[in-house]
Amino acid sequence: MSYTNQLNEALNYLDQNQDMAIQKLFEILKIPSISTNKQHSKDCKKAADWLQKELSDIGFNSKIMSTPGHPMVLANYPGEGPHFLFYGHYDVQPIDPINLWDHNPFEPKIENSPNGKIIKARGASDDKGQVMTFIEACRAYCKTSGSLPCQISILIEGEEEIGSPSMENFLKENSKKLSADYALVCDTGMWNARTPAITTMLRGMVGDEILITASNRDLHSGMYGGVAVNPIHLISKILSDLHDSNGRVTLEGFYDQVPDIPKSQKEEWKNLNFDSKKFLKDVGLSNVVGEKKYSPLEKLWSRPTCEVNGIWGGYIEPGFKTVLPSQAGAKVSFRLVGKQDPDKIIKSFRQHVKNRLPNDCEVSFIGKAGSGASSLEIDSPEIIAAQTALTEEWGVPAKLIGCGGSIPIGDHFRNILNMNSLLVGFGVEDDNIHSPNEKYNLSSFQKGTRSWVRILDKISKIN
Amino acid sequence: MSYTNQLNEALNYLDQNQDMAIQKLFEILKIPSISTNKQHSKDCKKAADWLQKELSDIGFNSKIMSTPGHPMVLANYPGEGPHFLFYGHYDVQPIDPINLWDHNPFEPKIENSPNGKIIKARGASDDKGQVMTFIEACRAYCKTSGSLPCQISILIEGEEEIGSPSMENFLKENSKKLSADYALVCDTGMWNARTPAITTMLRGMVGDEILITASNRDLHSGMYGGVAVNPIHLISKILSDLHDSNGRVTLEGFYDQVPDIPKSQKEEWKNLNFDSKKFLKDVGLSNVVGEKKYSPLEKLWSRPTCEVNGIWGGYIEPGFKTVLPSQAGAKVSFRLVGKQDPDKIIKSFRQHVKNRLPNDCEVSFIGKAGSGASSLEIDSPEIIAAQTALTEEWGVPAKLIGCGGSIPIGDHFRNILNMNSLLVGFGVEDDNIHSPNEKYNLSSFQKGTRSWVRILDKISKIN
Repeated sequence: MSYTNQLNEALNYLDQNQDMAIQKLFEILKIPSISTNKQHSKDCKKAADWLQKELSDIGFNSKIMSTPGHPMVLANYPGEGPHFLFYGHYDVQPIDPINLWDHNPFEPKIENSPNGKIIKARGASDDKGQVMTFIEACRAYCKTSGSLPCQISILIEGEEEIGSPSMENFLKENSKKLSADYALVCDTGMWNARTPAITTMLRGMVGDEILITASNRDLHSGMYGGVAVNPIHLISKILSDLHDSNGRVTLEGFYDQVPDIPKSQKEEWKNLNFDSKKFLKDVGLSNVVGEKKYSPLEKLWSRPTCEVNGIWGGYIEPGFKTVLPSQAGAKVSFRLVGKQDPDKIIKSFRQHVKNRLPNDCEVSFIGKAGSGASSLEIDSPEIIAAQTALTEEWGVPAKLIGCGGSIPIGDHFRNILNMNSLLVGFGVEDDNIHSPNEKYNLSSFQKGTRSWVRILDKISKIN
Repeated sequence: MSYTNQLNEALNYLDQNQDMAIQKLFEILKIPSISTNKQHSKDCKKAADWLQKELSDIGFNSKIMSTPGHPMVLANYPGEGPHFLFYGHYDVQPIDPINLWDHNPFEPKIENSPNGKIIKARGASDDKGQVMTFIEACRAYCKTSGSLPCQISILIEGEEEIGSPSMENFLKENSKKLSADYALVCDTGMWNARTPAITTMLRGMVGDEILITASNRDLHSGMYGGVAVNPIHLISKILSDLHDSNGRVTLEGFYDQVPDIPKSQKEEWKNLNFDSKKFLKDVGLSNVVGEKKYSPLEKLWSRPTCEVNGIWGGYIEPGFKTVLPSQAGAKVSFRLVGKQDPDKIIKSFRQHVKNRLPNDCEVSFIGKAGSGASSLEIDSPEIIAAQTALTEEWGVPAKLIGCGGSIPIGDHFRNILNMNSLLVGFGVEDDNIHSPNEKYNLSSFQKGTRSWVRILDKISKIN
C-alpha cells in the first residue's frame, strides 16, 4: 500500500468508526482519576490499566510502570524511519466547586451547544480527550495498514496536574527506553475553534504553600482582638504586597532573568489581532489587569506572573464565629518565562514572607516541583511538517502561538532526553479546563484525530 | 426563718449537694446546641426543653417561647421585694477545629489541672456553666426556704453566639412580661481565678461577611493569570488596607464617636498591674500589636478593633490546583466603644470595600446584627451590693473591670426595657471559650453558685 493510500485508508477508517471512538473516550472519562486527592489513587491506577490494555489491543508493547506516585503507562510500536515519543496524561483536576457543575463530571455526555456538539466531562479536554485523539489515530493506521508509518513510543503519566513529581527521576532511570528523535505532546490548544495551532512558547511554573501560625490556639476576638496578632491580617498583607500598583511582582530579583520581547515577536503577535475584550467578556470580566506596559497577549505568553490559587483561615462555615484564628494559609504559584529559575523564585518568595513575619509567629512552606519556560525553533522540519498537516486538515493556515500555561514535560524532555517537543493540541479557550463543566469540542476530537493521522504521515517522511 | 438563716441554709445545701449540681451541669453540657449550624437546631431545642423542665422542677413558672430562630426559655418565680431578670444563653460555639480537642467536646469530664480541678466541655464556661451557677443558687433557696428572697425572672436564649438576631423583637413583643427592676447577666469573667469581678464596661460588636465575585467561573491560572483579576488579590488588598502601619483602623469616621479614656480610668486600670507579657505568653505570643499609643488593657477594654475572623478563596484542599478562582470571601467583625454606631461602621466598611473593587467585579454583603458598647454607673446600690457579696464569698475585694468582649443583651435591656444590667461571671482567661478544649474551673462553678446565693441575699434587701 502506498503512503497516500495508507493515509486515506486511515482517515476513512476514522470517519466510519466515530461512534466507537466516542465510546472508547467515554470509558476513560468515567474514571475519576483526580491525582491531587489520595482518595482517588485507585482510580488513577484504573485509568492507567485501561490505557495499558487499550494500547496493547491496538498492537503496542504496553506496560504499567510504577512510580512513587501514580503509575506511568509506557508503550512501544516498532517501525521504520524516525522514532517519536508521544506524551499525554490521564490524571485530571479536582471537581470542586461541585455545585457549579450542571451534571456529574464523570458521566460524560454529548450535548448540542451554540457552536456545535461538545463532549462534557472532567478531563474531556485536559487531557484524556487529547490523548485519545492520538491513540485513535494509531488505531486507524493499525486497523487499516497493519502497522504505523514510523516507530512510536507512548508515555502517559498520572501526575501532570500535581506538577509531575515522579517525572524527572522516571526519565532519568528510563532514558534509554524513552530515547527518541522528537516528542509529540498533546496538551495544548488551538488558536480558535476553527484554526489549528502549534505552541512554540510555554511559560514555566513553580508553586509554594504557606501556613502561618500565630497564637497556639484559636482566640476569642473580644478577649484578644487588638492586642494579639491575627494571622489573617498578616497573610493579607503578605499577599497584597506581592504586586505593586503597576501590576508588577515585587519579589526581589523576580524580573532578573526575564528577556525583553523581540520586536519581530511583538509584531507577529499583534497581527494575530487577539480580541482581549472578547477573551475577558467570555468569563464575565472587562478590565485587563497586570503589568501596564504590555499587551494582553504579551502578558499571557511572555511575561511572568504570580497568582494566589487558594487562601484560608479562621471560621469559614455559614454563620459567624468571632474567632481570632491561630493559623492562616495560602497556595501561591508563579508562571515563569525566559531563564527564570524556579528555585530562585521560591527562595525570593519565602524571603518576602519571612520579612513580613513578626518574631512570635511561625511559617511553614510546602514547595511544589517547578520547571522553567521553554521555546522552540520554529523552522525545524517537524514543526513545518506538522504545520502543513494541520493546515491541510483544517483548511486554514495553522498558527504558531505562545501559551500562558506550563507543560513542564517539554522542559524535562529537553534537559534529560535531549529531545525537542512538538506541541499540538485541540483544546479551545472555553473548554473550562480546571473549572466546572469542562468540555471538548466534538470537532476537536474528530478533526484532532484526523490531524494526528496526517501529522504521522508527514513526520514519518522526515529524513 | 431569718434572712441570715435563709442565706446559711442555702449555702449549706450547695456544699452538701455538689455532686448533684455537677450531674445536672453535665446533662446540659452533653447537648451539642451549636446555634450557628442548622444541623444542630434540634439540639438547641433540646437544650431549651431541658432548661424549661429544670426550672419548672425547681418551682418556676417556666415555658418555651418560640422565635424565628432558636427558642427562648422564660421563667418566673413570684416573690416579695425587688424584681430581677436573670439572663444567660444555652447555645455554644462551633467545635472546629475538632482535631485540636483532646476529648469529645460534648462528653463533659472533670480533670485535675495544675491550677485545680476543671470541668471540660464545649459550653462549660460559655455559657452553660455560668447559667447553672444561678439556677443552682435558686434551687438551693427553694429547697431550703421553699421560696426565693425576691421576685426572679429568668430568660435564657439560644442565639447569643450568632448575634442574638431574634432578641430585639422578642424583647419588644414581651416587654411587659420581662419588665423588672434590674437585670442579672452571667456571661463575663473574673479578674483572675481567685479574684471576682463585676464588669462595668463592655465593647459593642458588629460584623459583616463579604463575598467578591470576579470572573463568572474558576479560570486556569496559566490561561488567564496576569490578565484577568484574581479576587484573592483583591480581598487581600481590601483586608490589608483595613489597618495602617500604626495599628489604627482606616475606615472613614471609625474613631469619630470614640471617647478619650478619662485619666482616672487610666490610673485605675494601671493599678490593676495587668501582665500583658503573661497574657500573650499563655497563648504562645510575645508581641503586643494594635494601636501604639494605648496600653494593652486600654486597647482591650476601651478601644475599638477590626478583626478578620475568616477568609476563603480558591483551592484549599491538600495538593495543588493552579486555579484563578471566581470568588473569595471573608468574615469581619468590629468591637465598638463609646457611642460608635454599628450601622455607621458597617456602612463605612462597605464603602471601603466598594472603593477598592474594580467595576467588573461584584460584592455581596451579609450583615450580622450589631450592638453598641455599654458602661454602667459604678455606685448604684445593685453594684455595691454585688461587690460586697462577691468580696465576702471570695475573701478578696471584687474588682470593677472592663471587658473586651461584647454582651449585646445589656444594650438591648437598656434600650428596650429601660433596665440596667449587673454583669457578674466566673469565667477566667484560660477557659478557652470559642476555642478547642473549653473548660470551666470547678471553683468557678462551686464558688460562683455560692456567690449568687449571697448576691440574691444582698440585692433582695435593696429598697
